Amino acid sequence: MAKTNTGRFFEDYSVGQVIDHAVPRTVSGGERALYHALYPARHALYSSDEFARGCGLPASPLDDLAAFHVVFGKTVPDVSLNAVANLGYAQGRWLKPVYPGDTLRSTSEVIGVKQNSNGKSGVVYVRTRGWNQRDEVVLDYVRWVMVRKRDLDAPAPETVIPELPKVVDAGDLVIPEGLDFSNYDFTLAGEPHRWGDYEIGEKIDHVDGVTIEEAEHMMATRLWQNTAKVHFDATNREDGKRLIYGGHVISMARALSFNGLANAQMIVGLNGGAHANPCFSGDTVRAWTEVLDKAETAAPGVGVVRLRLVAYKSGNVFELKGEDGKYLPGVLLDLDYWALMPI
Amino acid sequence: MAKTNTGRFFEDYSVGQVIDHAVPRTVSGGERALYHALYPARHALYSSDEFARGCGLPASPLDDLAAFHVVFGKTVPDVSLNAVANLGYAQGRWLKPVYPGDTLRSTSEVIGVKQNSNGKSGVVYVRTRGWNQRDEVVLDYVRWVMVRKRDLDAPAPETVIPELPKVVDAGDLVIPEGLDFSNYDFTLAGEPHRWGDYEIGEKIDHVDGVTIEEAEHMMATRLWQNTAKVHFDATNREDGKRLIYGGHVISMARALSFNGLANAQMIVGLNGGAHANPCFSGDTVRAWTEVLDKAETAAPGVGVVRLRLVAYKSGNVFELKGEDGKYLPGVLLDLDYWALMPI
Amino acid sequence: MAKTNTGRFFEDYSVGQVIDHAVPRTVSGGERALYHALYPARHALYSSDEFARGCGLPASPLDDLAAFHVVFGKTVPDVSLNAVANLGYAQGRWLKPVYPGDTLRSTSEVIGVKQNSNGKSGVVYVRTRGWNQRDEVVLDYVRWVMVRKRDLDAPAPETVIPELPKVVDAGDLVIPEGLDFSNYDFTLAGEPHRWGDYEIGEKIDHVDGVTIEEAEHMMATRLWQNTAKVHFDATNREDGKRLIYGGHVISMARALSFNGLANAQMIVGLNGGAHANPCFSGDTVRAWTEVLDKAETAAPGVGVVRLRLVAYKSGNVFELKGEDGKYLPGVLLDLDYWALMPI
Repeated sequence: MAKTNTGRFFEDYSVGQVIDHAVPRTVSGGERALYHALYPARHALYSSDEFARGCGLPASPLDDLAAFHVVFGKTVPDVSLNAVANLGYAQGRWLKPVYPGDTLRSTSEVIGVKQNSNGKSGVVYVRTRGWNQRDEVVLDYVRWVMVRKRDLDAPAPETVIPELPKVVDAGDLVIPEGLDFSNYDFTLAGEPHRWGDYEIGEKIDHVDGVTIEEAEHMMATRLWQNTAKVHFDATNREDGKRLIYGGHVISMARALSFNGLANAQMIVGLNGGAHANPCFSGDTVRAWTEVLDKAETAAPGVGVVRLRLVAYKSGNVFELKGEDGKYLPGVLLDLDYWALMPI
Repeated sequence: MAKTNTGRFFEDYSVGQVIDHAVPRTVSGGERALYHALYPARHALYSSDEFARGCGLPASPLDDLAAFHVVFGKTVPDVSLNAVANLGYAQGRWLKPVYPGDTLRSTSEVIGVKQNSNGKSGVVYVRTRGWNQRDEVVLDYVRWVMVRKRDLDAPAPETVIPELPKVVDAGDLVIPEGLDFSNYDFTLAGEPHRWGDYEIGEKIDHVDGVTIEEAEHMMATRLWQNTAKVHFDATNREDGKRLIYGGHVISMARALSFNGLANAQMIVGLNGGAHANPCFSGDTVRAWTEVLDKAETAAPGVGVVRLRLVAYKSGNVFELKGEDGKYLPGVLLDLDYWALMPI
Repeated sequence: MAKTNTGRFFEDYSVGQVIDHAVPRTVSGGERALYHALYPARHALYSSDEFARGCGLPASPLDDLAAFHVVFGKTVPDVSLNAVANLGYAQGRWLKPVYPGDTLRSTSEVIGVKQNSNGKSGVVYVRTRGWNQRDEVVLDYVRWVMVRKRDLDAPAPETVIPELPKVVDAGDLVIPEGLDFSNYDFTLAGEPHRWGDYEIGEKIDHVDGVTIEEAEHMMATRLWQNTAKVHFDATNREDGKRLIYGGHVISMARALSFNGLANAQMIVGLNGGAHANPCFSGDTVRAWTEVLDKAETAAPGVGVVRLRLVAYKSGNVFELKGEDGKYLPGVLLDLDYWALMPI
């Protein structure tokens, strides 16, 4: 019997199935330091224990996106090893901060399947949960991927498409216990702009660009124990290029967004996201943000903003789609998320 | 007086000599995170404190190969700075797991010398020991290297060739105190295959490949404080290439072997190893394993398998040597080790 | 209102102004491991908790240059985002070791301004202090940079040029509390040469060279949260090159100087420094040192040496300036510092 994992194919998924993903991971200051070496991350809450304590938390958590990548990485061998495309995200919520010393594991429940009309592949919807060592859910999100069939003659399953609201309701967002921005230090945070200073519809050019290297995206992707071979094996594609993990672009764009959004400290919701075009080594990534919505929260001094974060490698800032409604070829990422900000 | 270390030459070694290697090293979660960023390492026991505790250990240890590299790295300035070739390993045993917070140092005893017939170099055999801060030996292995003579007129020493069994006897392997695989979680470990599922002679293709970058192998090699200039200085060789530290290939191949050997958790013995051909940046490393032997142990639920791990950069899987008995040019590594596995 | 930071211009500085720099940073074993992965750093006091305790310290501190880079990095958005050139350093003193768990922040006081005769830029002198979470100053240094004017019509400020002695007086250096080299272990440190073995005027060739990669210098520079775009964005310069952060060359040269100066353990003073020529990926960095001065200290067994550390990428060892008094084109760095050494 072959002992290597060939991954699941479309016909291996059925609605209601729960997958316990392998290889739990304990995080430490090492993951935090590497995150800061790999991305120009400067949000103060994730850089300083003292700043985090000033905001009512016990210590500085692991970056929310690092927590996301760890949870996501575990799902790859079970969900996306034979994926043709990562189609979307929805209903993502960060429920508990992750601290050094925590151990994360992931589970996914299949909540939808739909065979494609070509009969060669289908779309699988999963709700993934990240858990800590106290069996608390730290993160919860839906993603859907297109997966190949192993056996083209396998019968098509009954189509189930989950209802996925385009936006997480602001009232459903979970504010970390104890979070308090009443005494927020704007000087140490790096910018004076508070929740009230941002207007819906406002666009921010994050100005800086970062040229990406092979060694960096591979180290990042491995750190999250994401093993999809397209990221590591230069012989895998005909053009000899290694496709960069979409999460690398997410983290890069979010880190660049510090310049203009230094106070959008914590990510608490992921409404949606599209990896519009592939990113390769040598590309220079830039980012811009549009403020989509705003809401207040019950936590002292804490507001929430809904942001569209766009990463691009060519073209102009604030450009997104062409006349045909499709993403422009230089656009890499279109991400819709909620972040907490001092009011 | 010149203050820089020019390294020892062949005539500087004599049987019985003990060398205390410099620069002790305290390891932390930082070394663990970097190991996971540099290699696709996913063995659960080295990823999760919770999983390790479920196996009877107090926490997740530093990867056995990381411990090996730290111990090995310290020997380089004293043993292999003027080495022409790293010829072999034997009688390696891991005696104590290394945990974050431990401080490692190394000593080597010269156990054999043999001048080559050309009179220009000779072979030196050393038994190297790695020690922790409690003066416990954590690792013990023999290696032999070919070293140049400084003074070609120096008299040849009496030849002493140590007796080196080709295999560490399974009964001599040391099982970490408390290790218990009775309640081993195969789901979290990532594969269902247990000790009983592997047959002697069975070969496993680990499928995945990783293309290697200069920045990665240099970071890895520096992390182990291995200072051999061939790894770092592109002006050192005529072809402008930096030779990749053989240990980088070992770690890469071992990490790739997760796919098919996810439950071969702990390395406890090193029977032998050959760096068959040099590895350079741009090479894509693949790996396969042959099961050479199996044995039971006294620890609850713990078996041991003897594995041949082969890394290659070209040619076909399961190919090793040509008709002339020599390694094929695409073979990088032929490693023979013992690993613990749930029965 | 534009929310992104465009940085200060020359006319934004005035003598007496104090700037509280943003984004405090908690360091851990992760920063230490990365420092060892990025540089061939082997000074035993910064590698081993046990060795550090043998020298009277509670644990192994973060490398002094890593502490410098963290403190320096925070000043970049406020001091050098619009800098044309980093002109010099003076009066630097390390006042407290930084340990894992410490949180650093920086402040700068403007102590001098002088508009250039061309009216387009000027020189700004700042005294920067790094502080830990107990509001103790851990590091204090002066640097001056040439900064562009935003508005060429802005009036020239009154010229103030601070008096900056070329050397920190040996008596003003601060020896870490408890430091005691009476029982210093020269074997574990890696070299037998003590303070008494070095003579003023002596020059040491550190022999080894390291070829630099893009991924490495970017990871290092990001780790210190230094965001100057010239280091990251390949589209920023006409030649498509990314300028390497001068501090990367300082750390590389200092680490290379282990070979010959293994016992120059702790950096306590920075007398001056010039980044003589730019460094780019692909350059092979080498280093040499000249002993400029020596002094005793009040701490048991502790002497101090004043060292000129030169990094170069081409040309010959021990060459520094041409007949015109200018640095030779292959010289990268000329650094003048004080280091503690066992007597």
